[in-house]
Amino acid sequence: MLVHKTEEVKNTVKSWKGLKVGLVPTMGALHEGHLSLIKKAKETCDKVVVSIFVNPIQFGPAEDYDKYPRTLDKDFELCTKEGVDLVFAPAPSEMYGEGQKLSNDTLTYVCPPFFYVNKLCGKTRTGHFDGVCTVVLKLFNIVRPDCAFFGQKDAQQVVIVKKMVKDLNVPVEIIQCPIVREESGLALSSRNKYLSEEGRKNALTLSRILNNIRACYKKGITDIEALKETAYGYLTDKHDLEYLEILDRNTLEEQEEANNDSIALIACRVENVRLIDNIYLGE
Amino acid sequence: MLVHKTEEVKNTVKSWKGLKVGLVPTMGALHEGHLSLIKKAKETCDKVVVSIFVNPIQFGPAEDYDKYPRTLDKDFELCTKEGVDLVFAPAPSEMYGEGQKLSNDTLTYVCPPFFYVNKLCGKTRTGHFDGVCTVVLKLFNIVRPDCAFFGQKDAQQVVIVKKMVKDLNVPVEIIQCPIVREESGLALSSRNKYLSEEGRKNALTLSRILNNIRACYKKGITDIEALKETAYGYLTDKHDLEYLEILDRNTLEEQEEANNDSIALIACRVENVRLIDNIYLGE
Repeated sequence: MLVHKTEEVKNTVKSWKGLKVGLVPTMGALHEGHLSLIKKAKETCDKVVVSIFVNPIQFGPAEDYDKYPRTLDKDFELCTKEGVDLVFAPAPSEMYGEGQKLSNDTLTYVCPPFFYVNKLCGKTRTGHFDGVCTVVLKLFNIVRPDCAFFGQKDAQQVVIVKKMVKDLNVPVEIIQCPIVREESGLALSSRNKYLSEEGRKNALTLSRILNNIRACYKKGITDIEALKETAYGYLTDKHDLEYLEILDRNTLEEQEEANNDSIALIACRVENVRLIDNIYLGE
Repeated sequence: MLVHKTEEVKNTVKSWKGLKVGLVPTMGALHEGHLSLIKKAKETCDKVVVSIFVNPIQFGPAEDYDKYPRTLDKDFELCTKEGVDLVFAPAPSEMYGEGQKLSNDTLTYVCPPFFYVNKLCGKTRTGHFDGVCTVVLKLFNIVRPDCAFFGQKDAQQVVIVKKMVKDLNVPVEIIQCPIVREESGLALSSRNKYLSEEGRKNALTLSRILNNIRACYKKGITDIEALKETAYGYLTDKHDLEYLEILDRNTLEEQEEANNDSIALIACRVENVRLIDNIYLGE
């Protein structure tokens, strides 16, 4: 069932009284990464809702909101094939009100803690995680799911959403699912569509750097600067590195040295497409 | 029933499945104003929860958090007499986590829109309404009520909470209840306890000013400056006026001239006790 209106979602979910409801929030352009979330939701819940909403308030003015891929017909088909019970694809006006100016002058926002936001993607994407938390909380309030499914690919996002859930007593269990990769190692992303064939090859560098860091850690190197330095041999003039960090996987805090709780995270532009990837060193 | 733990509240409310639940959020030191909210909740809901929590994050560093009156035994007795089903009185550590630093560096906040906050009480009480919205949303998520009851006395607070509910799709109906006054006209407030007998007399000026503004409006004066100027004859050196404003009662926006949607709001210190009051001009 494809639904565009908030009230319709509420009524449908209400009719599922007593059943366990899972929500998979997405921006559409669904790929195997999203499908793995949906499959997990189908396994663990009685009813599954997928939201498809390219959320304007999480994009900066210079970002790719307008050109972000929108493939609703195909997405709905994929959801149907996976047995999704409800696809919620609202218009921006349904989510934020007709003619509403999208700014914190006029809208209530959920603001995650500065110490969680002022690093990694949050450093360059000002306001991004405010937009993410705000829309995620809105979707939780509309759907009122028991569980919600997020991919580890957006590692900072999951940590921040979990923190929001804890800090605001949100009655939703957050289930984190592993990154899905192409055979080549490239982490799936809706933004991979922007890449040329050559770009896809250069994009492989991200997962190679991360795999190598993990291999070095497994061999006993725990010095964080030393681990990060292993990356530079992989980078060419086709790579515009934004960050490479090794942090605590639960809090995203800096560590004295790498350990089994460490996560290595990278963001890098290839053909001006911003790609991110990460890996747990202890796994 | 008096409960201090979040989990206990959740379990109790869960056992009320299918019943209509009302929440009256308070900071304790209950007076007839609060009791009017509780009575309204009892009238319209099957089960009534009263929360009693002096919320540290809505007080500024120079404000009266430490000396704010705490009278839990008496409050619980009053609630019992009114037939309240559950009183939730958490410790700060239960609400925000043991040893958690209370700052937006480390905690997720709900931030109401700048245009709603940058006036009236929000102008001097920086961060106050962030703290209010955050704790109110937390209480909503813990109790999951159908309705919540707020007094019109804190007029800016109700407008901002209603806006939060709308903006974040919070599934709670906000019921606003009229100001309760002493026979003298003084609006009830937990902070009235700080006043001497002489202070209470000087505090009457607030309601007198507001009543006079309404009387002038009823006589046909709609010029906002002219209405505000009627106040100055009432003020003495015992009054430290913080603001006197006439605004739209639903949006708190400025108006070209007063009309039946106008609200007059005043904040004034008497004996260094900050008092607020307001009146609808159209009623």
